[in-house]
Amino acid sequence: MSEALEAVRFEDGSLQYLDQRFLPAEIRYERARTCDEIVDAIVSLAVRGAPCIGVFAAYGIAVLRAGERDDRAFAAAAARVRSARPTAVNLAWAVDRVLAAEDMTREAIAVHEEQRSIDAAIAGNGMPLFAKGARVLTHCNTGPIATGGYGTALGVLIAAQRAGLAPHVIVDETRPLLQGARLTYLECLRAGIDATLQVDGAAAMAMARGRVDAVIVGADRIARNGDTANKIGTYGLAVLAAHHSIPLYVAAPRSTFDFTIASGAEIPIEERAASEVTSFGGRQVAPEGARVFNPAFDVTPGHLVAAFVTEYGVLRPPYAESIATLAGRPHWSAIRSVEGSRA
Amino acid sequence: MSEALEAVRFEDGSLQYLDQRFLPAEIRYERARTCDEIVDAIVSLAVRGAPCIGVFAAYGIAVLRAGERDDRAFAAAAARVRSARPTAVNLAWAVDRVLAAEDMTREAIAVHEEQRSIDAAIAGNGMPLFAKGARVLTHCNTGPIATGGYGTALGVLIAAQRAGLAPHVIVDETRPLLQGARLTYLECLRAGIDATLQVDGAAAMAMARGRVDAVIVGADRIARNGDTANKIGTYGLAVLAAHHSIPLYVAAPRSTFDFTIASGAEIPIEERAASEVTSFGGRQVAPEGARVFNPAFDVTPGHLVAAFVTEYGVLRPPYAESIATLAGRPHWSAIRSVEGSRA
Repeated sequence: MSEALEAVRFEDGSLQYLDQRFLPAEIRYERARTCDEIVDAIVSLAVRGAPCIGVFAAYGIAVLRAGERDDRAFAAAAARVRSARPTAVNLAWAVDRVLAAEDMTREAIAVHEEQRSIDAAIAGNGMPLFAKGARVLTHCNTGPIATGGYGTALGVLIAAQRAGLAPHVIVDETRPLLQGARLTYLECLRAGIDATLQVDGAAAMAMARGRVDAVIVGADRIARNGDTANKIGTYGLAVLAAHHSIPLYVAAPRSTFDFTIASGAEIPIEERAASEVTSFGGRQVAPEGARVFNPAFDVTPGHLVAAFVTEYGVLRPPYAESIATLAGRPHWSAIRSVEGSRA
Repeated sequence: MSEALEAVRFEDGSLQYLDQRFLPAEIRYERARTCDEIVDAIVSLAVRGAPCIGVFAAYGIAVLRAGERDDRAFAAAAARVRSARPTAVNLAWAVDRVLAAEDMTREAIAVHEEQRSIDAAIAGNGMPLFAKGARVLTHCNTGPIATGGYGTALGVLIAAQRAGLAPHVIVDETRPLLQGARLTYLECLRAGIDATLQVDGAAAMAMARGRVDAVIVGADRIARNGDTANKIGTYGLAVLAAHHSIPLYVAAPRSTFDFTIASGAEIPIEERAASEVTSFGGRQVAPEGARVFNPAFDVTPGHLVAAFVTEYGVLRPPYAESIATLAGRPHWSAIRSVEGSRA
């Protein structure tokens, strides 16, 4: 994946991140040295995607430790990084893990390696789901820049491309924030994948005209029965896919499964700012003061998911059983994974 | 409907049009005096919506005739107006009708009156489909500014509001051109309708959460079996509505039914410029040279339509029969319609 964009780079103690706000027009890397720079990168969404934020913050803590002799000042800085974005579960987890380590730089590198290893296992497990030349629709962005590794759903398709399967990827633009148009299409180009961009409303027609063989998406949270919270628009895609007898796959690591909730009814849906819908690129597109329904996610019932692709393998229905089995798996280790994914 | 925006105004021989390109930020009327001004307004999409273009062109011909003594120069100007937008069937029809009349100004006013009368009949016939306080989702723009009269699908909802039924209108933003956000939401505000704007991808979730009682849309072309071409995204809405047991209605005048085609398979789908999807307000949102699938319309199978609302009444399945009956109806007349809609 030499051409893939790296969301986070760490070399000789220097931490750099791809500022995703400028994509696709500009590929701009910035260096993060101070606590302010690290926090700003996260808060401003220059670095996005929960796994990617975790990787970035892990390195950030190591960088702060290396530059700060004073323990109290360092602890305060680490606490600020840890709480920069409360909804990103990987953030607090990654910070705590690095803080607990003897060699923080080494631990940050291990966090990153583990991410790559999990993503690679997902890609390897997902690839056999697609025939050569399959036309696969995806929604939102789940590529390398979303995880800091190789990606989840899009990672499977990039791996398929590298394996010579030549998938054709149909990219939903993904309103309101256009992650499909801005990020996924760019990652397809970088990976040499043949791709087509379309508005979200064109998916049904593309399916009806026989242009779509399968759908693959990522996930934000998955309940024990397979109910899946993901970017708004996913549930509609799942209903449309079922109507057209097209399989919909969800690619996600074990850490996305929430074994404490029985169904999607327990997943609260974040509503985001109206301005994401009423303005675009600084230009007003709806009347002043328009009331907006802007849910960040929707919930796809497990029965509309053909399979879950995880680093431990492909889970099939009944999900009550296959997801319970996943819950019992040991913590992923980058070293063990090489054997695991070959087994 | 005193607060409704008028797309076209004609007073004392002066023709004015609402420049829809500036909506919703600015309500700007321009006067059209010359052939260039009339043609430019149509070509630039300042005036849009096939029925509205017909009304505007009808007045335009009358204005040109009044200002041009030379018959040859007038004929050349009229021909330019007639061919300003080849796909708008109402345009050539309206121009020919005015040209054939003795008193062109009077005939242009009659074209406009007829449009209002047809729209009013559609609104009157559609209103009883909705209970008080019904939450109705709509797609694209089908209000007064789309027809030059009272609108079709949105016209039904505006009439319901005036009748005290207090509908709640859920407005799909309608990518790529955002007619919902820019135009429909504004027309709801002007009509005092309680409305909510959302991205197209949120429709499925809104339905699943019980926020939608019915869907009503317009149409561009309807086949003898009820297959309906309409703005891209409509077919997906129809599948989602069926999945959630929500009725989907199509409001359209008899002139939208194409009695010469047996099914939607005979409807060619126009693909529009990639730039509609890849850029917005001059800002690039997808990588340079991105390949785009940008169909202007999709086709909803007749079996997913609960009813068609026309100026002659509500058509129910089986459509092969009810649409055949519609085909046999006489030409609509603004005078006769008053009796007709009361019958």
